[in-house]
Amino acid sequence: MSLLTSVDARTSQVDDFRVLLDGALHDFLLARQDLAPELAAELRELILAGGKRIRPTFAWWGWRAGGGSPPVDAVVQAMVALELLQCCALVHDDVMDRSATRRGKPSVHESFAARHRRERWAASARQYGDSAAILVGDLALAWADDALVTAGLPADALSRAWGPWQAMRTEMIMGQHLDLLAVARREESLEHAVRVAALKTAAYTVERPLHLGAALAGADDDVVDCLRAYGHDIGVAFQLRDDLMGVFGDSSVTGKPVGEDLREGKRTPLMSIALSRAQGRPAAQRLLRRCLESGTVSDRTVDDVRALLVELGAVAAVEKHIEKLAGTGMAALDRAAIPSDARHELMRLADRAVTRTT
Amino acid sequence: MSLLTSVDARTSQVDDFRVLLDGALHDFLLARQDLAPELAAELRELILAGGKRIRPTFAWWGWRAGGGSPPVDAVVQAMVALELLQCCALVHDDVMDRSATRRGKPSVHESFAARHRRERWAASARQYGDSAAILVGDLALAWADDALVTAGLPADALSRAWGPWQAMRTEMIMGQHLDLLAVARREESLEHAVRVAALKTAAYTVERPLHLGAALAGADDDVVDCLRAYGHDIGVAFQLRDDLMGVFGDSSVTGKPVGEDLREGKRTPLMSIALSRAQGRPAAQRLLRRCLESGTVSDRTVDDVRALLVELGAVAAVEKHIEKLAGTGMAALDRAAIPSDARHELMRLADRAVTRTT
Repeated sequence: MSLLTSVDARTSQVDDFRVLLDGALHDFLLARQDLAPELAAELRELILAGGKRIRPTFAWWGWRAGGGSPPVDAVVQAMVALELLQCCALVHDDVMDRSATRRGKPSVHESFAARHRRERWAASARQYGDSAAILVGDLALAWADDALVTAGLPADALSRAWGPWQAMRTEMIMGQHLDLLAVARREESLEHAVRVAALKTAAYTVERPLHLGAALAGADDDVVDCLRAYGHDIGVAFQLRDDLMGVFGDSSVTGKPVGEDLREGKRTPLMSIALSRAQGRPAAQRLLRRCLESGTVSDRTVDDVRALLVELGAVAAVEKHIEKLAGTGMAALDRAAIPSDARHELMRLADRAVTRTT
Repeated sequence: MSLLTSVDARTSQVDDFRVLLDGALHDFLLARQDLAPELAAELRELILAGGKRIRPTFAWWGWRAGGGSPPVDAVVQAMVALELLQCCALVHDDVMDRSATRRGKPSVHESFAARHRRERWAASARQYGDSAAILVGDLALAWADDALVTAGLPADALSRAWGPWQAMRTEMIMGQHLDLLAVARREESLEHAVRVAALKTAAYTVERPLHLGAALAGADDDVVDCLRAYGHDIGVAFQLRDDLMGVFGDSSVTGKPVGEDLREGKRTPLMSIALSRAQGRPAAQRLLRRCLESGTVSDRTVDDVRALLVELGAVAAVEKHIEKLAGTGMAALDRAAIPSDARHELMRLADRAVTRTT
């Protein structure tokens, strides 16, 4: 176990994985800043503005759980890919949703549009902002692949990683599209909402990062299966928590406007349950549908919907489901033959994901 | 030379590389159609609607020029990556430029928006169309990497390919951004216009595909250098020809509306030269600036600008520059120690690129 010990020594030395990762992110972008200066600068701003680095963190602990042995530097560099992929998702998502802020700052397309207005450039500031943001997302996606491939991983590790990496990218994109379709088609079923959560968050945010990390480590199939089962359940639970935060969260903490998910008409399991429970109560149904379909909702309406979601028991039902998923997820983790430090950390991450208030 | 002979036999057997490539594109998309059905279907439509496959073709001949030996199938599959990358560029470009058509059919965002209207879906058809098209482009970009990595190339060939592949993706994105900036900043200098052409077309369309192909083949540095020099010159010439086609081309042949480049205010070397030659002629300057800045231009104005571009000698100057670049490009090719079939084909491709009328 001397290899793992040295990994422990290395991580404790720099406090935690986050510091290693942020260093690698910084180095990666610094080395490329001259290639596409304006676009790369926006990417850097977005990364520096915060973020929980949740995908790289699950990938790291997937690697540790899989008994990964050094080179640590190469593995950390590979994790840069996951954060860059997430940058692509965020930047393009903000264009698609027309979100003005991200991590408490102007979103990338807003930032480019503001510069266009400030410099009194020609033609449409909005079109320029959107276009430049599309390119920043493309750059992040292309560079994500570059980060993985050029991380310096042993050839066999890289080749094992490619399967989960491919799946993660396609699932992320597919999940985004199902999200769009749900709004367009006025989807109200709980099944559909749960399917989106499974693809968009469980797979993309927890299950596949763990899978990728474990694959890099060359973990046994049994370990991979347990980690993926844990990842699926904790991932769905995480999304359900995120949905609650999107409705009830404090904007000074989430960095997003109050009730943004309600304003955007997000088809979440929370809303599906509420709609189903509001049957026979026309006024309650009208209020929920106004949120889901109008596109603009007043602060007063947001308050009313919040109260209604509690009153209908939708919030309690979602909380109960989160608890159930946390239970089955932890049970899957219990079955995995993995080092105890990884087990403890994955328990802690699961706990934080499902109980978090930030 | 038996290996190359067998490559020749293989390609002549199926008539040409295009047939092999289209088969590989078809197989690649077919194998993935269930992963993201609606998005992949749009990608397939776009690919089936036509296109010259110019980047895979240059990559293929770069590989042949570099003395590439089988597996042919893996190399053809790797070329799929270049066409998918181009799909990303086209789909996102059409969103950015708000182009309604592509290859004579509705552009991807228009196609999604039309479906939204047809099905009477909720919220904004335009926003849905743009969003879904952003995701189609993302999918094409992610799958481009998948195509390269899973092509079945020998590990050393794949590892040599990664440098030019990384450069090609970043240069494509950077070129698009310089294009946007040129419009926004009202760039009029010939230097800037030539720089965009060099990055966006010379590098992305000709030089890097050749470089990638030659790298896959493990070509000598001398050969790579000559091919890249040829690629740079022929690529800029190709872009200059494309600019002329964008202004003077027949829409039934180009598949784009008449004078689209003029309507979009594209900052081409052609327009830079015209502006510079129109100095001291206020009416001519006004007409050119109206094109570059207004965003909407009547058919009558398009006719007037065409006549003016000829009268100012801007067309003749661009034609002369194309001829000069073709000369220096061919000279670089002459210096390259490459098989004669590749030399002849690259001469033919250069000739077609710089003299084409379609």
